[in-house]
Amino acid sequence: MNINTNDFKDINPGDRVLMGPGPSNVSARVLQAMSAPCIGHLDPYFLSVMDETQLLLKYLFQTENPFTIPVSGTGSAGMETSFVNLVEPGAEVAVCINGVFGLRMADIVRRLGGQLIRVDGEWGRAIDPEAVRKVVRGKNPKVLALVHAETSTGVCQPLEDIANIAHEAGALFLVDMVTSLGGIDVAVDRIGIDVAYSGTQKCISCPPGLAPITFGPAAIKALESRKSPVVSWYLDMSMLRSYWGAERKYHHTAPINMIYALREALRIIAEEGLEARFARHKLNHRALVAGIEAMGLAMLVPESERLPMLNAVCIPEGVNDMKVRKALLTDFGIEIGGGLGNLQGKIWRVGLMGHSSSRKNVFLFLSALETLLNAEGAKIKTGALKEASAVYAET
Amino acid sequence: MNINTNDFKDINPGDRVLMGPGPSNVSARVLQAMSAPCIGHLDPYFLSVMDETQLLLKYLFQTENPFTIPVSGTGSAGMETSFVNLVEPGAEVAVCINGVFGLRMADIVRRLGGQLIRVDGEWGRAIDPEAVRKVVRGKNPKVLALVHAETSTGVCQPLEDIANIAHEAGALFLVDMVTSLGGIDVAVDRIGIDVAYSGTQKCISCPPGLAPITFGPAAIKALESRKSPVVSWYLDMSMLRSYWGAERKYHHTAPINMIYALREALRIIAEEGLEARFARHKLNHRALVAGIEAMGLAMLVPESERLPMLNAVCIPEGVNDMKVRKALLTDFGIEIGGGLGNLQGKIWRVGLMGHSSSRKNVFLFLSALETLLNAEGAKIKTGALKEASAVYAET
Repeated sequence: MNINTNDFKDINPGDRVLMGPGPSNVSARVLQAMSAPCIGHLDPYFLSVMDETQLLLKYLFQTENPFTIPVSGTGSAGMETSFVNLVEPGAEVAVCINGVFGLRMADIVRRLGGQLIRVDGEWGRAIDPEAVRKVVRGKNPKVLALVHAETSTGVCQPLEDIANIAHEAGALFLVDMVTSLGGIDVAVDRIGIDVAYSGTQKCISCPPGLAPITFGPAAIKALESRKSPVVSWYLDMSMLRSYWGAERKYHHTAPINMIYALREALRIIAEEGLEARFARHKLNHRALVAGIEAMGLAMLVPESERLPMLNAVCIPEGVNDMKVRKALLTDFGIEIGGGLGNLQGKIWRVGLMGHSSSRKNVFLFLSALETLLNAEGAKIKTGALKEASAVYAET
Repeated sequence: MNINTNDFKDINPGDRVLMGPGPSNVSARVLQAMSAPCIGHLDPYFLSVMDETQLLLKYLFQTENPFTIPVSGTGSAGMETSFVNLVEPGAEVAVCINGVFGLRMADIVRRLGGQLIRVDGEWGRAIDPEAVRKVVRGKNPKVLALVHAETSTGVCQPLEDIANIAHEAGALFLVDMVTSLGGIDVAVDRIGIDVAYSGTQKCISCPPGLAPITFGPAAIKALESRKSPVVSWYLDMSMLRSYWGAERKYHHTAPINMIYALREALRIIAEEGLEARFARHKLNHRALVAGIEAMGLAMLVPESERLPMLNAVCIPEGVNDMKVRKALLTDFGIEIGGGLGNLQGKIWRVGLMGHSSSRKNVFLFLSALETLLNAEGAKIKTGALKEASAVYAET
């Protein structure tokens, strides 16, 4: 096979404003840290980088769990790691499903030979704890799993009540924080979450490629009492514990430069502080919604159940989804997401995650959308920017 | 949990000369490409980067297999991907074992419920095709797997005869090329390899984090005729085919910046050309060995079975393994590897991989080693640099 090397140009992705369901924009500091020289995965300097990354991840997850690490794969690998280590064939596993990522959990449970207990909820609404209690009653789930921030719908799932239901049922409480971690309060220890995982490319604003994960004491105990080996060698937490723990026993070569990047992104989060970061996400979300609603557009999710970092906006009747998204990308360099599954063509998913959650982006998006919708002949009201401004003026 | 952000300094790994079993040194071009702005995984520009990466990977694997992609994990994830997609519970799987990575394959087969057929060989020697034929006779293996370049011993496994044995037995031929790909000729199509995988951090000289993989027609057919679902959602090749293929169906968020880096590393390989690259690896290996043997040190592996990129040097009697490696790292910034398993304390593993395979590194290493061994009082002969020079003078 022949290759003409002149066909391949320098990497040049241009400037995108990333306001979709992730990745979010990555700051120059993180990109710079990532491009530091690659060194050995057992080099004393790299071992210190691992230690610091674990410390910063514990701060972000708000946990004292010693076993808090970045898994060497994307957020989906975090989901798989959680289930593959805790679900043995035949085990009952309850999964709350109100969007694409709950469905994915159910798919993984089935592949592992678990007995799936489905708790179905309406897409675009939070799951009612009472529905969980009802379905779980009389069952013996080993794990009760749900998605904190359903990226496919923009719903924020309250966790406290369901954490209690899980523990009353004797189940481990497993939470997907791919989209929420770093953008909204998710205190692992305070809520009583046994296992949580996330991805780096959402509110952490690091490139995709790692899955922060934390295993609490009950999860470690479950891992240690397994009867069958973990079906995945790569994601076997017992072996990963020996590598990330004091033994430093070689397992696989860690993605060195990605971990440089994650450490820097976490350092930025620590410098801002969690409270300030959550407040910023909330504020920009409120301004965006004020602008969207001022145009006369509707949000998919009721106000009390909305995520700050992922805003599902109903596409007005008669407006061409793809045409608007394409114009946003080509004319303004703005990426937003479309709907998934049944919501395809019905919603836009507008992300305000991490580094991308800024007043600048809110104004850019509102003004671009207003312009494009007017060009499409959609009937929208004026005053979006004024209403968004009013939100910032309150503070 | 409180964090003092002053405790965390800027990433500063310093300059290391990476001459261990991987990672190898990464060129500035690759680091720069990796630090280009992160964009969306479905952005038209990124889709073109995916296409180009596939084209360059096909060139490197010397294959026309359309399904040739980087898996979103390190080399070990490539190993797991290969087996998890092809091994269903109860299937017979033959694995050749003459080092750590053959053992790892066997471990993965057992976890998947496969019936392991072991072909054991001496560590430090290639597996004899006749031994394979004998063990496989009368069996019905679905897969016959081996490691082309055993990173734990420095042995190069000849492939042609065993490829024939595999196909005569009706098995898919699965080859681990983690350490060989990009440093020695491995023509997937010409040899008749059905599945091969690698890692990015060895002879490709890209940071660790991706696993190039190629599935040939027979492997795809086996995948399509599975009776049970692939136990891993994350590594399910049917789903990955829909994402990397024409459909572009979202599966997981690709590690965008890592793929920028891989594409650039592959572009550098294409610019050098495969033949020139293989010749460079061979030449620097010969010079290193000439210097090592001139000192009176022995190589673990017989000449005809040596890898050019991973050189197992026997540690002379009475020399302290750790002390020498530590001095290499702290006094000279050179990383080499120690022995694994039974070979711990008995060999040094000296890598000459990709960007690290250079005359400059051969001379630096030989002069540093000579100096340290003399300081240790080891009885070594003079003339290492002269003999290494003589090898370069031949060309």
